[in-house]
Amino acid sequence: MDPRGIRINEKRFWSTLMRSSEIGPGTAGGLRRLALSDTDREMRDQFVSWCKDAGCAVTIDQAGNIFARLEGREKLPPVAMGSHLDTTAFGGRFDGILGVLSGLEVIRTLQDKGFKPKRPIEVINWSNEEGVRFPVYMSGSLVFSGQRPIEWLYSLTDGNGLTFGDELRRIGYAGDVPAGSKYFDTYFELHIEQGPILYEADIPVGIVVGGAFVRGLSVSFQGQTAHSGGTPMNRRANALVGAAKFITTINDIGWKFTPMGRTTATWIKVWPNKRAAIPGYVEVMVDMRHQDPTETNQMYQEVIKAVNQCAWEARLDFKIHEEWTFGGNLHFDLDCIACLRNSAKVLNVPAMDLYSQAGHDAYFISQVAPTAMIFCPCVDGLSHNEAENIIPEQTWPSVNVLLQAVLTRAER
Amino acid sequence: MDPRGIRINEKRFWSTLMRSSEIGPGTAGGLRRLALSDTDREMRDQFVSWCKDAGCAVTIDQAGNIFARLEGREKLPPVAMGSHLDTTAFGGRFDGILGVLSGLEVIRTLQDKGFKPKRPIEVINWSNEEGVRFPVYMSGSLVFSGQRPIEWLYSLTDGNGLTFGDELRRIGYAGDVPAGSKYFDTYFELHIEQGPILYEADIPVGIVVGGAFVRGLSVSFQGQTAHSGGTPMNRRANALVGAAKFITTINDIGWKFTPMGRTTATWIKVWPNKRAAIPGYVEVMVDMRHQDPTETNQMYQEVIKAVNQCAWEARLDFKIHEEWTFGGNLHFDLDCIACLRNSAKVLNVPAMDLYSQAGHDAYFISQVAPTAMIFCPCVDGLSHNEAENIIPEQTWPSVNVLLQAVLTRAER
Repeated sequence: MDPRGIRINEKRFWSTLMRSSEIGPGTAGGLRRLALSDTDREMRDQFVSWCKDAGCAVTIDQAGNIFARLEGREKLPPVAMGSHLDTTAFGGRFDGILGVLSGLEVIRTLQDKGFKPKRPIEVINWSNEEGVRFPVYMSGSLVFSGQRPIEWLYSLTDGNGLTFGDELRRIGYAGDVPAGSKYFDTYFELHIEQGPILYEADIPVGIVVGGAFVRGLSVSFQGQTAHSGGTPMNRRANALVGAAKFITTINDIGWKFTPMGRTTATWIKVWPNKRAAIPGYVEVMVDMRHQDPTETNQMYQEVIKAVNQCAWEARLDFKIHEEWTFGGNLHFDLDCIACLRNSAKVLNVPAMDLYSQAGHDAYFISQVAPTAMIFCPCVDGLSHNEAENIIPEQTWPSVNVLLQAVLTRAER
Repeated sequence: MDPRGIRINEKRFWSTLMRSSEIGPGTAGGLRRLALSDTDREMRDQFVSWCKDAGCAVTIDQAGNIFARLEGREKLPPVAMGSHLDTTAFGGRFDGILGVLSGLEVIRTLQDKGFKPKRPIEVINWSNEEGVRFPVYMSGSLVFSGQRPIEWLYSLTDGNGLTFGDELRRIGYAGDVPAGSKYFDTYFELHIEQGPILYEADIPVGIVVGGAFVRGLSVSFQGQTAHSGGTPMNRRANALVGAAKFITTINDIGWKFTPMGRTTATWIKVWPNKRAAIPGYVEVMVDMRHQDPTETNQMYQEVIKAVNQCAWEARLDFKIHEEWTFGGNLHFDLDCIACLRNSAKVLNVPAMDLYSQAGHDAYFISQVAPTAMIFCPCVDGLSHNEAENIIPEQTWPSVNVLLQAVLTRAER
């Protein structure tokens, strides 16, 4: 069969996305579907049921990653697609979800046509991509890629002291397939851009050629709590004032590195955080991103200088508790990237090369399989917000490019 | 009896304070005895038992305020002393507690001598002075002074949704005496200074001649939450950056008004406060204090200007949610103040006039009874901190001045 004439069923795909949008609704039009919650289970059940209806065999690995497989004409490693069905605490309806359900739509479209490709095709839901409830993002694909053992994953704990392992068993998604025992011929991930470039350029397809190099750290400032009335200004060691100077300074550092640099204080904890008390202890979490790792490292140096300077100005001690990195020189596969570019050309769809700023499961999968990513526009580049949105007509081209690329790779 | 020769029993008083320090211990040598908690009940029970042993009749009003009364020779309005036995979440062993237990020590001392004064003498524990669990401070004395109805107090809710009324009944301290139905001839409150002036001057007695005028407000900054990776610096409306500029600016305002001005951001709430998310919403609580109300109002004007300016710089909306004031031109009674000054003179104890920066139950009581306050030194002026401390030898003089003043007023 010549794949060039095949297109997805837009109406069916949209109604599938809208059904997902009903499971775990937020308070402002988005979703709150935290990993391993009851609503995550409900969405997983719905997804598994859809996949089985589409003729797939479903397996679950020890990390709770779900693999739905359409058999091919030959016994070869599969072409895989995937992303995640969990959301942030106040998340949108498409971040991650679009990547999983577009894979399902690709399989459904092939089934419509009665076409069995040479290689098997799989669609995957990776566990706990957002890392909101169990605070390590992309942890399902991290374990799959062999960088952490399953015991590590099981011992992650949420804010109520519940473990990942117990919660995964509770929702019935602790499979017995060892994580990482599968091998892919290809892995494609379609995702909303989470930035404004495609939306503003009105280009429906972004081909990801690299990812921002992200460095993060959590730092604490230690001063002295005391009465906010009795304590004169010159006797204070106000940890919140030091942290506020720091937050302002790191924002300025981001501006210095525009347009591609981004620095953000995302999280803060203040102690005792009570009326009439000078805050004695503050923790701040910071992330720094730039597509050029040298620039990220430069930003990091300036941030560390700012920690020192702000602590000194506010008469505080400080401590760096944790540091992490991801992204950087992505090892996306040149053949897979070429296949996406060519698929867009075949379909006559405008496409451009892009860097990813966010983290994606594809980053980890790229270390164990030939991988590439497609971005589609999202309105105003907004994500991690309940108002996150896509324009259907701007979205279909990327899903058709995915379909085209999957077929091309699967017929090899 | 000539009262000039009477002194408290220092050893007994110290061991009473140390017994209190065992009830609701914190994690760093201080106390965590939140209002209407099990430990507050335990301390109240202990206090009531001590008072009864000292020959007092104990009554409880509807607000849970405890009144222990030693009858006088005549049926006249009593001379009262008091403060509070509850603490902040990470509080010290003396803030408030010293004022209640010194009242008990005064009564015990009179009983030792077998002396019955002309007027009755009362010692009072006011409910929920700290306002940490039920977030209105000095709420027991506020209701007593007739400024809020009892229903208002009962409906205050803690972080777990429990009401003041239910919790007061649960611990057995919902009395039936209508709050405010008692009349005092005099009210004296002894308290640690919660500032460094007496400690540094090595003067054991401060006579409070006024209170800082305190203005407070809670303000929110509304921006837009979005992905910290995908969102370029120039498309952000980062509420935490606006709040950080604001916190830094109000700290600078405090410095402008040194030595007597104090401005503090005490409390902050950030939303969504998650990794990889730009904060979209932040609330900050601020207090401004100065002994000169004109200066407090000037500070307030500058703070409001800062709200506008910082919101504008960070492209945020803002809203002022709540404003409150207390203190200011205290109506402490000139005769009571003179009585304290004279008592110090009689005992040959060094004393100085002082302004109070913190809020105290005496502020509200001064509106319904002739009132004055005594401060004693605390180490380094530190309070609202588990390390809060007093030096016993620096403390006895203020308790003896209290005893002296109570006797003087009670014999009138």
